[in-house]
Amino acid sequence: MRIAMLGLGSVGKGIARAILEQDLGLSLTAVADSKSGRIEPSGIDIASMLEQKERTGMCGTPGVGAADILASDAYDILIEVSPTNAETGEPALGYIREALSRGMSVVTSNKGPVALDYQSLHLLAKEHGAYLRYEATVCGAIPIMHTIESGLAGNTITKLYGVFNGTCNYILTRMAEEGLTYQQALLEARELGYAEADPTYDVKGIDAAIKLVILANAVWGMEKTLDDVEITGIDGVTTAAIALAEEQDLTIRLIGEIIPAEDVLRVSPRIIPKSHPLVVEETLNAVAIDTEMAGEITLIGKGAGSLETASAVISDLLFIRDCHGRRS
Amino acid sequence: MRIAMLGLGSVGKGIARAILEQDLGLSLTAVADSKSGRIEPSGIDIASMLEQKERTGMCGTPGVGAADILASDAYDILIEVSPTNAETGEPALGYIREALSRGMSVVTSNKGPVALDYQSLHLLAKEHGAYLRYEATVCGAIPIMHTIESGLAGNTITKLYGVFNGTCNYILTRMAEEGLTYQQALLEARELGYAEADPTYDVKGIDAAIKLVILANAVWGMEKTLDDVEITGIDGVTTAAIALAEEQDLTIRLIGEIIPAEDVLRVSPRIIPKSHPLVVEETLNAVAIDTEMAGEITLIGKGAGSLETASAVISDLLFIRDCHGRRS
Repeated sequence: MRIAMLGLGSVGKGIARAILEQDLGLSLTAVADSKSGRIEPSGIDIASMLEQKERTGMCGTPGVGAADILASDAYDILIEVSPTNAETGEPALGYIREALSRGMSVVTSNKGPVALDYQSLHLLAKEHGAYLRYEATVCGAIPIMHTIESGLAGNTITKLYGVFNGTCNYILTRMAEEGLTYQQALLEARELGYAEADPTYDVKGIDAAIKLVILANAVWGMEKTLDDVEITGIDGVTTAAIALAEEQDLTIRLIGEIIPAEDVLRVSPRIIPKSHPLVVEETLNAVAIDTEMAGEITLIGKGAGSLETASAVISDLLFIRDCHGRRS
Repeated sequence: MRIAMLGLGSVGKGIARAILEQDLGLSLTAVADSKSGRIEPSGIDIASMLEQKERTGMCGTPGVGAADILASDAYDILIEVSPTNAETGEPALGYIREALSRGMSVVTSNKGPVALDYQSLHLLAKEHGAYLRYEATVCGAIPIMHTIESGLAGNTITKLYGVFNGTCNYILTRMAEEGLTYQQALLEARELGYAEADPTYDVKGIDAAIKLVILANAVWGMEKTLDDVEITGIDGVTTAAIALAEEQDLTIRLIGEIIPAEDVLRVSPRIIPKSHPLVVEETLNAVAIDTEMAGEITLIGKGAGSLETASAVISDLLFIRDCHGRRS
């Protein structure tokens, strides 16, 4: 299958390397970064393209861009891993719409488009007989979507809850372990690169809430937006509250949960037993999937990182390659 | 797709009910228990068949058996959930060979045949263009096989390790929690139905070792047998050793591990930090999958139970139904 990729940051490079080094039956035929692009229907020499990108900052020729690639006939699947605006989803949203409208399947790691416009993208894919896949948008390397649709196929999912934000989990872990205040732990997370200069998006629970919106719409066909999520962040959690919990073998974690029967989407700090599978350390993510046959299945892994995101994108590519038979 | 099922114990009944109650695109056309059977190419009335089984102990007509079903043209997929002999794998092994030889795909929950004869069954399936699926043989409801082949597709699996036996995990949990001796905890496990009258198979690590053999052969194409596994059971673990570990926030679990680079398959009690994702409580199972892109992904869930096993069988059926494109 011929692959076009928009975006060549650390995730895009990781994907290109995997296509180069492994025998996946995939050929990279078009790629664009913010300044340049190239289209080679017979297959790009990935090693030399990456070398050029490293040397010059450009993967191809200036003037060749996303629009040229999208309009070309050089690809079967679009990988959309460009930087996006979380509020509008653009320009990724437009790229994805354009590819789906042309009947091309799309794999993306961008939360924005999927959280903002899932139902319309889903319909567009269906209408044009294309796949839309987005495993990488929720909890990085953890294969939540694949597990629900494949490993737990035939089950009704009754509830989903978990630790969806590694930054918050790091801060809460450090407050519990070392008795740090919220501000001290946040400072430490910033120094280690786990928190942004403006940490609002993470610590206020917004990032976790966006993941709940994606899951609610994808797993249950709901039509939720960020406004439908009850959100409480971790910035009000005190060291004293955590210490009190720890005395009773409990701790505090930021838990996101979807309970379809009660129409609830909620992100909030919760007191849970330290022996609970969701109590993971540092920046790990964890998701518990409740089902009526398989019981509760919990998945734990790295929720962020470029190689981890590349892994999720590649699993989606291979799903499409293997023609799974279910249209998005 | 037309399904034939050999075995109608609690797992088989669970599968039949799921086919009846859910719109899975599957039709049950043949079934046999130890005393009777029925073949109805146009589709069995599952509700009335289950009612007859409940009332008479027989699902069909005496004299109709596995051989008749296997030789018929009434099915596309065989579900093999009959009782088996762990040492010979029979009669399940023969049933599976017969179906695969006729080009029919097979889904089984029987560890014996898969652990004893994986390579030859795998070849037989390949030769006849059939699928052989066995998710239910390792850790019940936990979708290990699906996760490796689908959710982590494109990853190299560098190591697999975990808690593969719920009976041992229950005993070790209770020894740590309540300071019970091994004998006291074993007695409690027996009373609760978590341990057999003869617990050798579980507490000596043999059950966990069989699961490692299946995973080694299936995931890496090894040709291992039970003799290749270094096995130490939990019957030598003392309350004092656990108490000492707990003082330092550590505990003891029976860990099975496969390290392909070192050609190691090993089951043994290990000291691990209590905060480690593999430290699960009571009868839960947990498996950590190490990969080079996705990092470490841990799956936790119920490793036994008839409904949980039925869930795994159904996920395999749906995999085949969806024509995944990869031959066993």
